[in-house]
Amino acid sequence: MLKKEIRVIGIDDSPFNKFDNSNVLVIGVIFRGGSFLDGSLSTKVRVDGNNATKKLVEMINKCKFKPQLQCIFLDGIALGGFNVVDIAELNKKTGLPVIVVIRRKPDIETIKKTLIKINKKSKIKLIEKAGEVIKINNIYAQLKGISKEKAKEILDIVCTRSHIPEPVRVAHLIASGIVKGESKGKA
Amino acid sequence: MLKKEIRVIGIDDSPFNKFDNSNVLVIGVIFRGGSFLDGSLSTKVRVDGNNATKKLVEMINKCKFKPQLQCIFLDGIALGGFNVVDIAELNKKTGLPVIVVIRRKPDIETIKKTLIKINKKSKIKLIEKAGEVIKINNIYAQLKGISKEKAKEILDIVCTRSHIPEPVRVAHLIASGIVKGESKGKA
Repeated sequence: MLKKEIRVIGIDDSPFNKFDNSNVLVIGVIFRGGSFLDGSLSTKVRVDGNNATKKLVEMINKCKFKPQLQCIFLDGIALGGFNVVDIAELNKKTGLPVIVVIRRKPDIETIKKTLIKINKKSKIKLIEKAGEVIKINNIYAQLKGISKEKAKEILDIVCTRSHIPEPVRVAHLIASGIVKGESKGKA
Repeated sequence: MLKKEIRVIGIDDSPFNKFDNSNVLVIGVIFRGGSFLDGSLSTKVRVDGNNATKKLVEMINKCKFKPQLQCIFLDGIALGGFNVVDIAELNKKTGLPVIVVIRRKPDIETIKKTLIKINKKSKIKLIEKAGEVIKINNIYAQLKGISKEKAKEILDIVCTRSHIPEPVRVAHLIASGIVKGESKGKA
């Protein structure tokens, strides 16, 4: 049984203009369970770049909450457009399970076609490496370093206000509020 | 009786280096009651400048949450060093009560001496205009457009995790996490 106060981090990127920004702000929000915001982190990743994994590993490993963290939530597998996270690497280098949450079932074939079209074929490997998209409760997810049963147990604790984990919902609201002046949309 | 889900905004500035930054990031966090983060806003004010009141009025009046907002919380009366907020003006131009929360009883005499020393005598008037510092529960406060009784009623709803209102605590954690890369200290 997991403690209700389990400490987790939710990560989301901010809105960006792909023609203007070379870097995009990424926000990490640490929650204790599903209702207590414990702290926040930030970093930057290159739009359509290749440094998302490295930047997340750094941000997480050096933060003071690291010893207590028990799970990483990502809002989708890419940050700043097509800066795809290698979740196996993220799992390995942080020692933490990774749960990628996805609101709607992704259309992998369309994503692959787009990546081929924009000459980012190497990203397809990372998306495939991230493994099967499975359904848990009302969302879709990709898991690394954690079983479906355990992931469901954590999601049941941290999804207190919507179908997605509170730290992801809040990271999204913060990231868009900072860049746009006012939070918009849903994670 | 106030609803438990009363919508309030908490505002705090981010850490800054007074020799490097001409503008400081200011974060507004909207909460429903003491546990649900509803959205976030941001603006910038000049370090030691005079535009804090104007910038807060703009940020609050144009936001989509405005029709529901019932109270503004400030973390101290100044943003970005000595950019002192005119809380009477803020109250008048937004139509919302203002509660300045102060963790420790401020040493007004020392503040005044500092302002005289750095040639910001005009700010003293704003601080005096903000009215008496009173004790409510475990914090100090300055009020505009609201009675002590009503302010206590709202504070009892929104101070769920510490002595200070949740939106102020969270605004502080976010503002410092973004600028420093990791949230530090207390609001």
